[in-house]
Amino acid sequence: IEPSSEEGFSREYDAITQKALEDIDICQNEIDQLNEKASEEILKVEQKYNQLRKPFFEKRSEIIKKIPNFWVTSFVNHPQISNILEEDEEECLHYLRKLDVEEFDDIKSGYRINFYFATNPYFSNDVLTKEFHLGSTGDPTSQSTSIQWKEGNNLLSKQLKQQQKNGGPSSSSAAKKRPLEFRSFFIWFTDHSDPSSDDIAEVIKDDIWPNPLHYFLVPDIEVENGDEEDD
Amino acid sequence: IEPSSEEGFSREYDAITQKALEDIDICQNEIDQLNEKASEEILKVEQKYNQLRKPFFEKRSEIIKKIPNFWVTSFVNHPQISNILEEDEEECLHYLRKLDVEEFDDIKSGYRINFYFATNPYFSNDVLTKEFHLGSTGDPTSQSTSIQWKEGNNLLSKQLKQQQKNGGPSSSSAAKKRPLEFRSFFIWFTDHSDPSSDDIAEVIKDDIWPNPLHYFLVPDIEVENGDEEDD
Ligand SMILES: [Ca+2]
Ligand SMILES: [Ca+2]
Ligand SMILES: [Mg+2]
Ligand SMILES: [Mg+2]
Repeated sequence: IEPSSEEGFSREYDAITQKALEDIDICQNEIDQLNEKASEEILKVEQKYNQLRKPFFEKRSEIIKKIPNFWVTSFVNHPQISNILEEDEEECLHYLRKLDVEEFDDIKSGYRINFYFATNPYFSNDVLTKEFHLGSTGDPTSQSTSIQWKEGNNLLSKQLKQQQKNGGPSSSSAAKKRPLEFRSFFIWFTDHSDPSSDDIAEVIKDDIWPNPLHYFLVPDIEVENGDEEDD
Repeated sequence: IEPSSEEGFSREYDAITQKALEDIDICQNEIDQLNEKASEEILKVEQKYNQLRKPFFEKRSEIIKKIPNFWVTSFVNHPQISNILEEDEEECLHYLRKLDVEEFDDIKSGYRINFYFATNPYFSNDVLTKEFHLGSTGDPTSQSTSIQWKEGNNLLSKQLKQQQKNGGPSSSSAAKKRPLEFRSFFIWFTDHSDPSSDDIAEVIKDDIWPNPLHYFLVPDIEVENGDEEDD
């Protein structure tokens, strides 16, 4: 069935070495098969616990809705997210009612971040989704919901214009990673130029989503005077 | 049973928010418990497959012994290992008959790299072991077999003297990571100053050990003229 391994190591090796190399290759194939089976079993465990965790995440989402500005507060308190939040974007995120992260069924194949918004003056979408497809080739791609901006309130084009004025990259030169100072929440949301290193998406998935309460509470725990944002 | 969560979020929140925060905390604890159970199940799967792989790794080790200089060739062909191999260390590694990597039973707690040597002019040990204890606190430590050098053939002190002559760090100033040019195989083996980033140990464990055949064969696959090392 696998004739190639019978003639793979013929070049400059003597007969004993050649036979040994073939035998090592056979061992290696057995090990590879066991590795694959192990990965499959681990995937099943992860899927099982994803299902078991789901009702608690859903319940958590419902409770979070009772707390005004829970998500925007968690974002503002997160060092990396707050870095990219422009002032009017932060205002806009006061309408963010619910956030969730869905891992695709075959976990390794990707995930989706859903932002659920209340009716707001900025756009007419109810849900904005950014999703990542990791694919079997290992080259990830991302896509996101097309935002239906309301007239005069397009925060993305406002950002892009502002940055062009400041000498930043134009919207068409997004091939390389934007420097931090040229990023914003909506620039991030609509940027698909380097999905393999989307640090903001990873922070939301791996840092905020597992324990948003930590970031909601952080300033009251770590500094005594946490009132500077009061309106 | 857990009275602290009843009074954890009292500061500046209204009653509804305070109750919601407590309810989120309860969800979070359920999620944490599921995470812990998932980790335990995944550990069990990994342990099971470690046991299943073991006989194939052992068989592979026995076959490898039939190929002269298998391990030293794999080391020389590995870009990172070859970087630290001094010429006389490479000569010494011609006596390396067997190498294995043992992960401790509680996988996350550490691992051990065993180098088995034939009788040789350099030292009297049969096995040299470098091992890493990751510990529950997350601060790893390493230790290694004390090498019983034979008179006149102490490759480690030779290296250290050579480097001192060249203006390198003395053996007592090993607190910081050595720059690449001041490393050697035996300096690596005896260095325990920064076990949390022992790149050479990681390369042996994660790169060479899973498929040493790949590195043994590499130059014949990737360059046409692989004979420059013939004696
Ligand atoms: Ca602010
Ligand atoms: Ca050489
Ligand atoms: Mg605000
Ligand atoms: Mg040699």
